[in-house]
Amino acid sequence: MSEMGLVVVGAAGRMGQTLIRTVQQVAGVRVAGAIERAGSPFLGRDAGELAGVGPLGVPIVDDPLPVFARADGVLDFSVPAATVEFAGYAAQARIVHVIGTTGCSAEDDARIAAAARHATIVKSGNMSLGVNLLAVLVEQAARALGPEDFDIEVVEMHHRHKVDAPSGTALLLGQAAAAGREIGLADNSVRVRDGHTGPRPEGAIGFATLRGGSVVGDHSVILAGPGERVVLSHNAEDRAIFARGAVRAALWAHGRKPGLYSMRDVLGLA
Amino acid sequence: MSEMGLVVVGAAGRMGQTLIRTVQQVAGVRVAGAIERAGSPFLGRDAGELAGVGPLGVPIVDDPLPVFARADGVLDFSVPAATVEFAGYAAQARIVHVIGTTGCSAEDDARIAAAARHATIVKSGNMSLGVNLLAVLVEQAARALGPEDFDIEVVEMHHRHKVDAPSGTALLLGQAAAAGREIGLADNSVRVRDGHTGPRPEGAIGFATLRGGSVVGDHSVILAGPGERVVLSHNAEDRAIFARGAVRAALWAHGRKPGLYSMRDVLGLA
Amino acid sequence: MSEMGLVVVGAAGRMGQTLIRTVQQVAGVRVAGAIERAGSPFLGRDAGELAGVGPLGVPIVDDPLPVFARADGVLDFSVPAATVEFAGYAAQARIVHVIGTTGCSAEDDARIAAAARHATIVKSGNMSLGVNLLAVLVEQAARALGPEDFDIEVVEMHHRHKVDAPSGTALLLGQAAAAGREIGLADNSVRVRDGHTGPRPEGAIGFATLRGGSVVGDHSVILAGPGERVVLSHNAEDRAIFARGAVRAALWAHGRKPGLYSMRDVLGLA
Amino acid sequence: MSEMGLVVVGAAGRMGQTLIRTVQQVAGVRVAGAIERAGSPFLGRDAGELAGVGPLGVPIVDDPLPVFARADGVLDFSVPAATVEFAGYAAQARIVHVIGTTGCSAEDDARIAAAARHATIVKSGNMSLGVNLLAVLVEQAARALGPEDFDIEVVEMHHRHKVDAPSGTALLLGQAAAAGREIGLADNSVRVRDGHTGPRPEGAIGFATLRGGSVVGDHSVILAGPGERVVLSHNAEDRAIFARGAVRAALWAHGRKPGLYSMRDVLGLA
Repeated sequence: MSEMGLVVVGAAGRMGQTLIRTVQQVAGVRVAGAIERAGSPFLGRDAGELAGVGPLGVPIVDDPLPVFARADGVLDFSVPAATVEFAGYAAQARIVHVIGTTGCSAEDDARIAAAARHATIVKSGNMSLGVNLLAVLVEQAARALGPEDFDIEVVEMHHRHKVDAPSGTALLLGQAAAAGREIGLADNSVRVRDGHTGPRPEGAIGFATLRGGSVVGDHSVILAGPGERVVLSHNAEDRAIFARGAVRAALWAHGRKPGLYSMRDVLGLA
Repeated sequence: MSEMGLVVVGAAGRMGQTLIRTVQQVAGVRVAGAIERAGSPFLGRDAGELAGVGPLGVPIVDDPLPVFARADGVLDFSVPAATVEFAGYAAQARIVHVIGTTGCSAEDDARIAAAARHATIVKSGNMSLGVNLLAVLVEQAARALGPEDFDIEVVEMHHRHKVDAPSGTALLLGQAAAAGREIGLADNSVRVRDGHTGPRPEGAIGFATLRGGSVVGDHSVILAGPGERVVLSHNAEDRAIFARGAVRAALWAHGRKPGLYSMRDVLGLA
Repeated sequence: MSEMGLVVVGAAGRMGQTLIRTVQQVAGVRVAGAIERAGSPFLGRDAGELAGVGPLGVPIVDDPLPVFARADGVLDFSVPAATVEFAGYAAQARIVHVIGTTGCSAEDDARIAAAARHATIVKSGNMSLGVNLLAVLVEQAARALGPEDFDIEVVEMHHRHKVDAPSGTALLLGQAAAAGREIGLADNSVRVRDGHTGPRPEGAIGFATLRGGSVVGDHSVILAGPGERVVLSHNAEDRAIFARGAVRAALWAHGRKPGLYSMRDVLGLA
Repeated sequence: MSEMGLVVVGAAGRMGQTLIRTVQQVAGVRVAGAIERAGSPFLGRDAGELAGVGPLGVPIVDDPLPVFARADGVLDFSVPAATVEFAGYAAQARIVHVIGTTGCSAEDDARIAAAARHATIVKSGNMSLGVNLLAVLVEQAARALGPEDFDIEVVEMHHRHKVDAPSGTALLLGQAAAAGREIGLADNSVRVRDGHTGPRPEGAIGFATLRGGSVVGDHSVILAGPGERVVLSHNAEDRAIFARGAVRAALWAHGRKPGLYSMRDVLGLA
């Protein structure tokens, strides 16, 4: 079987370059296109050269449609507005669209779901193997250790440049805990503690956020009960794990029928 | 229903006293007897007074048989030789025998299994809720994250007085990891690293042991892969969690048919 | 030399009972008095019996003055209003006053300082040996690893019943970090992160609070820089460490001239 | 002032390439030479091109002497035999020699000390800022928390390819702890625990080693006492921290008189 041709969007950004390097390393895939926004100073540059893997003969361009038409899939860690647009193009081209973009609104998600009638979309708040496994384990632990005895806390740390809190992955893990407890996360979250808080509300899922240095992303879910604690953690050492997960998702989705899938589907954990 | 009458063996020891205090606190059970070895200076003392919960009218004695005959179950965190003997008495009395004793040989285990034809035995290397849940999660994680990419390490810390290494619980967690990988633990353990070790053997399960202070028991299982780590941990703050788990096991086993059960059965995780 | 006679205030509370048990265990000190508030249901009870160490011949009473007059020191983990009053009595009696009370206002502190002209007062937001050492190390680390490169975060976890955040000890550690950086803590704290926070302000000291289970008290100070992190942590397993530290402070202060001292003085780390 | 010209030895290896990239990024230094062993397939290649930073006009050669003669300093993370030889050449050239090589014998160290009569040598088992600070803090903590009450454990984790245990940095931290306790490390180390170990010997410094995945290097020193623990940790996210530290050491040593210095001198922590 021939290699799967993948388009990287946001190809001149940090994550875009990581995606290009990762595609170069993994067997069965090749860089088929590289997109940046109109006006980017990197338009016309060779995507491989920019990413430090030597020339690939793939210039960075700003018009996705013709590039998508010649490709088998798209790797997309961009921003919601762009992702929604890319999903439409992927639907037109009837190709795979792997979405690692975070911060989508309900409306964005609805438009992505609509595109999934014709595109094979894999979307996840975190593309790493370990985080998606962790979410499955958290759900089970939250079910086995009930709220009378066990309190659930989610704590995360990211680098000093991150501008939102809690991280999308922290919320994904909180969601998994809430699912295990069969409660809604929104109604049971404690996201701020400062001053006189009173005792902890039973059944609450607490969030705490740390920021500093160059931390790629650490997450822990703590289940604290009488005399004992269970702690389930993930440490990302390297942004490339998200790129590796995205490529794995693309390979899994290749040839599969259109629809909206998650990393749990990719990993066989659904 | 009347309360379940429980015999505590090793009633003058630290764990025995914790068991007596715990039985006093939990609804549905009462202290029905207290055993120490022949020659113990504590024979004749009131078990409750010794444990600091006030007199219970239960003197510490050295002959288990008449005490077992009047009881519904036995809580036993003693030593293998004594446990094998107690299992025989529990079988004669056709009662529940909860065994938290560690270090049993294959021969000991065979004799316990034989006793389980008439006694309802729950045996586990660790009686805590959290540890038994953790073992289930470790097995799944070890299965999902294969040995080409992910290395498994088990690290534990206990107080300065502990005389063996690794802990029974560390081995229980290693066993769970080996089960997830469908390999034998004995053939795939690395228990010592010192000097020139060479690179890590693929598929090995490593153990590391820390000792110090008054640590009740901390265990972590690390699954370390390319660019990411999943860490599954348990921290015991208080020896009473093992006593609480043992009492919970006794209540679960009460009225159940003879056989050899584990904490996973008790917790519905089997 | 005769034993140092110590008065425990709040003698019927959880910390008061721990103090009484600890005084009983440590050589060189004895329980010389036990105080509770007027109207307490425990007035008249023997302080030792209540604490589970057998009768001491020390009844719990509500009038501190005559008791202080016969004692060498006072152990006080109560509330600010009571502590200020006790400091006045300790000054009258010219004895040692060890204060572990938290939440004192500037005015409270001024009155305590005034009492220290005649009483020998040791006051600390945390009486444990380890925490006070940690504060010294944090100050040095904060000085050596400057704010351009290293971000400081303080994270703490306590049991589900704690009603304020961050803990007094977290603030004490934040203060140590601020001292190392030669900045004011109040002007450089980030105590809440939720939603769109923007990038981390340079030089900020962040706080995060976890609550759950029966955790006695865990604190970590993280110094996160480019490509590396230094983490300085303290884990309290047992509330008795604060009692042991208070007794150690009392013994250190015995015979010393009046003044206001800290645990750093006691430990020779000042 | 003109830039400091630095020679990188082992220039085609993973650490050598990191050094070249780091020298390119830091102000005040430039790559003045690149050495590989005779017979290396990389001889003649441009050192910058190989390291992915574009051509520097610095070919990789195998004869150090003429290269050292034109340089101001040498960055050396090689092997003991090579390092001893390079130290001799650095002495002849009267330049700076920054040595991050581990595993030197007493004899190697003696020859390096001899070279330091004419070369300005900075040698450390770990070149990171954080680790060297940690060693200073560990020494103080070990002094303040005595062996009757507090037990010291050193635990480290590195990637699956590391071939020796414990790491040089773990031993450096153990050495710091031993210095704080005023004991010899060799006589007080416990490096293996397996099977029946008996209780922990008082005053021992324990080591535990974890291996797996791609972990760059995590180290923790635990001081475990009655009811509390102090844990002092360092996490390296990125091998470049050692290169950055080495460049910082070179800049510090530039123009300084010959002698044998450590990173503590460089950091002003000695």
